[in-house]
Parts: sequence; structure tokens; C-alpha cells
Amino acid sequence: MNKSLTHVDSDGNARMVDVGAKAETQRLAIASGRIAMSAQALEAIRAGNAPKGDVLGTARIAGIMAGKKTSELIPMCHPLAIDAINVDFGFEEGAIRATATAAITGKTGVEMEAITAVSVALLTIYDMAKAFDKGMVIGEIRLIEKRGGKSGVWRAPDLER
Amino acid sequence: MNKSLTHVDSDGNARMVDVGAKAETQRLAIASGRIAMSAQALEAIRAGNAPKGDVLGTARIAGIMAGKKTSELIPMCHPLAIDAINVDFGFEEGAIRATATAAITGKTGVEMEAITAVSVALLTIYDMAKAFDKGMVIGEIRLIEKRGGKSGVWRAPDLER
Amino acid sequence: MNKSLTHVDSDGNARMVDVGAKAETQRLAIASGRIAMSAQALEAIRAGNAPKGDVLGTARIAGIMAGKKTSELIPMCHPLAIDAINVDFGFEEGAIRATATAAITGKTGVEMEAITAVSVALLTIYDMAKAFDKGMVIGEIRLIEKRGGKSGVWRAPDLER
Amino acid sequence: MNKSLTHVDSDGNARMVDVGAKAETQRLAIASGRIAMSAQALEAIRAGNAPKGDVLGTARIAGIMAGKKTSELIPMCHPLAIDAINVDFGFEEGAIRATATAAITGKTGVEMEAITAVSVALLTIYDMAKAFDKGMVIGEIRLIEKRGGKSGVWRAPDLER
Amino acid sequence: MNKSLTHVDSDGNARMVDVGAKAETQRLAIASGRIAMSAQALEAIRAGNAPKGDVLGTARIAGIMAGKKTSELIPMCHPLAIDAINVDFGFEEGAIRATATAAITGKTGVEMEAITAVSVALLTIYDMAKAFDKGMVIGEIRLIEKRGGKSGVWRAPDLER
Amino acid sequence: MNKSLTHVDSDGNARMVDVGAKAETQRLAIASGRIAMSAQALEAIRAGNAPKGDVLGTARIAGIMAGKKTSELIPMCHPLAIDAINVDFGFEEGAIRATATAAITGKTGVEMEAITAVSVALLTIYDMAKAFDKGMVIGEIRLIEKRGGKSGVWRAPDLER
Repeated sequence: MNKSLTHVDSDGNARMVDVGAKAETQRLAIASGRIAMSAQALEAIRAGNAPKGDVLGTARIAGIMAGKKTSELIPMCHPLAIDAINVDFGFEEGAIRATATAAITGKTGVEMEAITAVSVALLTIYDMAKAFDKGMVIGEIRLIEKRGGKSGVWRAPDLER
Repeated sequence: MNKSLTHVDSDGNARMVDVGAKAETQRLAIASGRIAMSAQALEAIRAGNAPKGDVLGTARIAGIMAGKKTSELIPMCHPLAIDAINVDFGFEEGAIRATATAAITGKTGVEMEAITAVSVALLTIYDMAKAFDKGMVIGEIRLIEKRGGKSGVWRAPDLER
Repeated sequence: MNKSLTHVDSDGNARMVDVGAKAETQRLAIASGRIAMSAQALEAIRAGNAPKGDVLGTARIAGIMAGKKTSELIPMCHPLAIDAINVDFGFEEGAIRATATAAITGKTGVEMEAITAVSVALLTIYDMAKAFDKGMVIGEIRLIEKRGGKSGVWRAPDLER
Repeated sequence: MNKSLTHVDSDGNARMVDVGAKAETQRLAIASGRIAMSAQALEAIRAGNAPKGDVLGTARIAGIMAGKKTSELIPMCHPLAIDAINVDFGFEEGAIRATATAAITGKTGVEMEAITAVSVALLTIYDMAKAFDKGMVIGEIRLIEKRGGKSGVWRAPDLER
Repeated sequence: MNKSLTHVDSDGNARMVDVGAKAETQRLAIASGRIAMSAQALEAIRAGNAPKGDVLGTARIAGIMAGKKTSELIPMCHPLAIDAINVDFGFEEGAIRATATAAITGKTGVEMEAITAVSVALLTIYDMAKAFDKGMVIGEIRLIEKRGGKSGVWRAPDLER
Repeated sequence: MNKSLTHVDSDGNARMVDVGAKAETQRLAIASGRIAMSAQALEAIRAGNAPKGDVLGTARIAGIMAGKKTSELIPMCHPLAIDAINVDFGFEEGAIRATATAAITGKTGVEMEAITAVSVALLTIYDMAKAFDKGMVIGEIRLIEKRGGKSGVWRAPDLER
């Protein structure tokens, strides 16, 4: 096994990978995560959501805007002219799930953009519902699927049927 | 029970809570989270960590800087003149745990600053180790403890002994 | 009359006013503006607004977030720990009106925060409705009222009854 | 008529348009707006402008820098590698007019960049002259012309001769 | 001698100093630096400066805005509600000198704000004059004076008369 | 001699150069600078550096992140999709030297990105060591080499052998 950490040089220093020689291809990444909460908080968001939808609406905007800021937040990420980032939500038993999709025509993938969008969308839900439940737990933040680039299609192995 | 979502007005619109009438007190928040990964990725970070410590060193800086940016990321958060944000890491079985502490002398708490610092520190580890393991999962992001302000001390109930 | 431009020194150079000697008082500013558009665009926003409210919901979030960024956008503005910024909308004949309120306990006013929030909320409406009507016109952006600080209460003279 | 709001999906949620399939073409946008003010404020800016030009000089820099930040301010805007943004001013009867031109070789237009640059340039004039006249009114912010992309040349219909 | 690096904990990790227990006092910092350049570049800036002053005018704005961004740029710096930052320029033999003054009523000093403002003002001059002279050299960036806080007045020893 | 300041139009106003007609080529820039300090501060960084390397590790991250922010800091710089920015350090007699390399496949050079990365890396060292030595001096910040674009290879003349 001869892999090494791509973001650390031979002396162990952090470094940005030079993507100058990579080809521009269409790339896509899908990430997901969830926030578990009390029945009361979940109900408040669902009901508050009914008339104007602002908790999830606000979380969606926050997630998209954070996805566009990924290279400002994650030190070794490249600034990217992304084609799109979108965020959706679903209600689960005792939790809300956020799923983000990021797309680019570029030299490097958009996994971090999708995962960052999911994370900040969930943090925003936490912020807006914390008066109800300070004990909410954010989890299962992960990459679901990735397309494009040299390595082709990747899907989270344990999620494959 | 007569609570309502503090960040949503009576028409369901998102709103920022006016903290003008609140007293300035010393406040503290501790948050934590973890990233589960393959033995190979964990070993690479631990070994890469030995000589110069850059994966966790970079994640620490990213977490602190993101904590300072919380009000730019989370729409209804107030811009705060925080006293400090710090991030620490620990190795667990198949995972790395990040813990962040945020402190302020102010009118509103710093829970979101601590949770945001933890989240971005873990996202940075993901970014720097993803060449080894795209299937890493970030989870257990939560508030551990909160001090100061009208509500006094709060500790995550299921973590209390 | 012996006033001079407070942001320009005696040589004509731009300068930031030093607010170090000012007292901290509660201050409030209300600003307003409108975007005129075709009946078709207005109807689309109103209808699109019905189920989930996202055009105005997105514009509200954008306005609040921009208000928090005022000192990054306007060169001579001070970074401020604002107490709150909020944005509301109203439908008028052939137009949508945005009104923003900003509050602070501080040494300097929040007029620019309120006016910036209104401006960016209206720009966001333009962006989201421009597929319908590229000819929309944004106007009547102005300060409506200002309270606190040495100069006390100010109301736009032509709007007083 | 079968158009729909391009930034809202079929459920009414805000979304970013995916521009991945669009061709890169040369695109240009021109926007304009004005700030009406008292004769005294106008004279102060004109005179202050004479020796060093800093009110309008500062407003020009603020407008250009804000134009580059458009995708941070307007939630559904794409981050763009713009070719140029420039801002000019003209004195009118009781007002100053700002005009911005933005250019790109890309998949999406730069209308929002031009309109944002105009808006923030005018906000900066407001900030720097508000000691003279709190009652200034910003208006007539609009797109004047747009070139490039699938829809070709567009000019504001009521401004055409 | 028992001092230690205040920004590094006992394990060598970077940390933010907690300023929660410090008193709020009036603090001031003055920093300076210079950019050496060819006679041709210097003359172009001086002449270009004559009618509208935009090279130095732009550098002044850039320096002030960067000073306000210091805590975003320097990882361990606290976000501060500064009272003022200003930048001035002087022509020297074969060089332009920039001097910045920063002031705050707060718990921590504003040295970094002043030094950052100087640095970015000089970088902006480099950018705007590099067509003339790519070989310009920026140097002598340093703290000149510091007032307020526990340590009182400090002046650069070798600059004292 | 018929050159003029490329960032100033014929009336002396600041302007962004339109790069729309330029070809995309591979471009590289190398910049360098140093911070002189007392033997005590140098020793503390070197020793503090031994176990975990955080002073220079933090400065490296700060430099890279600032390089990515160049177009936000320098008013007339274009937002660029850089391929890489990296920063290295070397110990000299009474000083630490920082060297940054920036690369892009684009229409305009990355000199400013490299010089900005060097400057902010050195400012970060100042911040983290200032408890030891407030009299540190940053200097010799300059472009060392530039490749690509119409003007081909440039090397600092006085550094050529």
C-alpha cells in the first residue's frame, strides 16, 4: 500500500494539491446528514413550517450559501466556480434529514461543497430550534455519491443495495 | 406548554432575536463531535501527525476560524466579540473526537460558536483524509455544556453521571 | 454653516470617524425601499409565495445577513455588535416594499445596517424574479426613522404627518 | 404563458439554477442608479471631490469590491470569475448617478454583479454624506443593458430612443 | 526568564488567548511600512495622484477595510469592535511610506489591526504599479507605538530619540 | 516611454483591467519575505516548533487562506480559480523567511496571490510571537519569479546569478 495523505507533503506540512494538470470534467457530489431532536421540537418545526416554512427555508439558504463559501472554511479546498448547490429536507422518526447536491464542470470534485452545505443547514436548524431542545444531536454526515473525474462513480458501499 | 420557536415570528417568518435588553454576563459553551474512519486513514493521520501534526493542526485552525465566522454562516446568529474559541482532539477506537470551547462576556450564548468550530474542524479532517477513505462519517455533534446567562448551567442530560 | 464631511479629513482623504469617546446608548434605525415590477412578476412572487414563501423568505434572509456584513461592504462603517436586524415585506400597487429595522446598544448608529439590509433584500427579489421581468426598478431606498445617540429622534420630514 | 420563477422549484423551495450545460460566452451588463440629496450635500461632495476626490473615489472602490462579492450577498447567485467590474459617476440636478459595467466570459450573466456594484456605491455615498443630509433617497436602480448568452442583447425598453 | 509563547499551549498546539478577565481600556496602535520602487513608478503614482489621487486613495481604502478584517486573516486574533483605523501615506526617496493608526476601547490591543492595514495598503500599491516595476520591495513593516492596556506605552526602542 | 498605470483610467480613476480577451495559460508566481526578531523569539518559535510545529503551521494555513482571499483584499484584483497556493518557511540568521508559490491556469497572473500569502504568513508569525518581541520587523516582501502569460518568464534581476 503506497498511498499517502494528499494534503500533507513529505515533511508533514499541510499543502494545497496543485490541480493545474487535471482535465475539466462534469462532477457531482451528493451528501447527507441528520439532526435528531425531541418530538416537541420536531413538531414545532413541522407546524412552524406549515404556514411559511421558515426554519427549513432558512436552513436551506444557509446551506447553499455555506456551500459557496467552502474554500473559505476548509483550508486546503480550492475556490471553485460551481454550477449549482441545492439542499433538501425530509422528516424522519425523531429527526430531520438534509441532503445536498453540488455540481461543477471543473478540475476537482465538489464533495466538500456538498458536505459543508449539509453541515451548515443542520447547524441552522439547531440554532433555530435550540430554545426547545438543547440536546439535539447532529450525525450521519457523509458522502452518499460522487460522479465524474478520474475515479468515476463512487457510492457509499454500505448504502448500496 | 407555551414555548414557541424564538427565531420565527407569529406569521412564521424568520427573525433575529433582539438581545438589546439582556445583561452582559460571562458565558461558556463546550461542544463535541467525532469522525469515524477506516483503520488505515486513522493510522495515516496519527503517523502524519507524529512529525509535524498538520492534519489535526490544520483542523484546529479551521475550527477556530470558523467559530469566529459563525454569525456569517448561521443566518439568525448575532455577531459576537468572543473572548476565546479553542479546539482539541482525541483519538478513539476507529474515530477522532473534536471538542471546542467558546467563551464570551456578552448578552447571548456561544453554543453556536462552539458547535460550528467542532463541525468545521471535522470537515477539515474529512477533506485532508478523503484520499484514504471517502466513506468517513461525521456524527455525535452536540452541545456538552453551557454556562452563564439567565438559564445558568446546562449539561447534556444523558452524559451526566 | 460650518459642517464638513465627517468622513473626509482636511486634505480630502477618506477617514474613519473615531467613536472612542462616544457613549454607548440604545439606538434604532428603520429604513425602507421598494422594487417596481410587471403585474406578471408580482403575481408570480405572490403565488410562488403562497405555498412556501421562498422568494420573500430568501430575500429576508439575504437582507438580514447583508445587514450583519455592512462594515465589510461600506468602507468607513464600524464593525458593530448589533442587537438585531429584521426585514419585512408588503405588497403595493405594482411593487413590493421592504422595511428593515436595526438595533444596537453602542457608540454609533445603525442607519447603514438598516439601509444595507433593505438594499440587498430588494436585490435578491430582483435576482429571483428577473426571468419574468428584467426591467424591474429598485427605488425609494431611504432612512425612515432613527432613535438614540446625541441627536435623539429623527424622522424623514416629508413622511411626517 | 408558461414561464415559472427559475429560482423556485415545483414545491416552491428556493434553488440554485444548474448552469453546467450552458456554453461559455462573452457577457456584459450595464446597470445604473442615483442618489438624490440636498444642494448642500451635493456641493460638499463636489467640493470635497475637487482636491482629492475621496467620496466618489471611495464609493467607486466599494462598488467594485461589492460587485466581486455578489455571490456572497445574493443567495442564488453563482460564484463567477468575472473579467471586470467598473463604476462611474455623474452629477445630475440634485443627485449623483452611478453606472456600473460588468463583464465575464462564462455560463451565466453578470446583471446582478452590475446592479450590486451600483447599489453599494450609492450606499457608500449615503454613508459619507449623511452628516449633511439624512433624507437622501436612493432610486432608479436598474439594468440598462445586457449582452451575450442565449437571449442576446437586451436594453431597457423605456430608455430606448 | 519564564515567558512562553502566549498563543501555543503546553503541548505546542495553537490556541486563542482568553481575554474574558481583562479590563476594557482605551488602546491605540501605530504601525508603519514602506514600498521601494523605481523612479518611474514613483513618478507615475505621484502624477497619477495629482488629478484624482486614486492609487493612494485606493490603497487607503484597502488598508482600512483589511484592518477591519484582521480577525478573519490572522487565526488567533479576536474579532474586535474597533473605534477607528486610518491610513496615511508619505513620499520618501525612492519609496512610499504608509502609516496606520488603530484605536479601540476593549480588552485587547489593536497592533495587528494597524500592521495588517499597513501591509494591505502597501500590497495594493504594488498591485496598481506593478505594470511599471515588478521589482518593488515592501519592507520596514513594524509597530511604532502602542498605548493602553496593562503594559502602558511602548515605543519602538530604535526609533526613540 | 508610453506606459501608463494600468489600473487608473485617463481621468485618474481606479479601474479593474478587463481580462476578457486574454488567453488562458498556465501561470506561476513565487514570492518571498522575512521577519526579523530577537534571538529569544526565534528560539521560542524553533523550540515551540519542535513538538507540534504550531507557530509556523498556523502561519502556513493563514498564508494559504489569505492567498485565496486576495481578490477580497486588493481592490482591483480579479477573483481567480487558482490551482494551488503553498507556503514554506526557512530559518535565517535572526529571522524567519517565508516563500509562497501560486499557480493558475487562467487569463491573469497570480503574483498578488503569492505576495499576499507571504505577507499574511509573516503577520501571523508576528501575532504569535509578539509577547516576546514587539519590535519584530517584516521586510524584503517581493516577487521572486513569474512564469506564463504574454510576458513569459521574469526573475527579480538583482537575485539572478
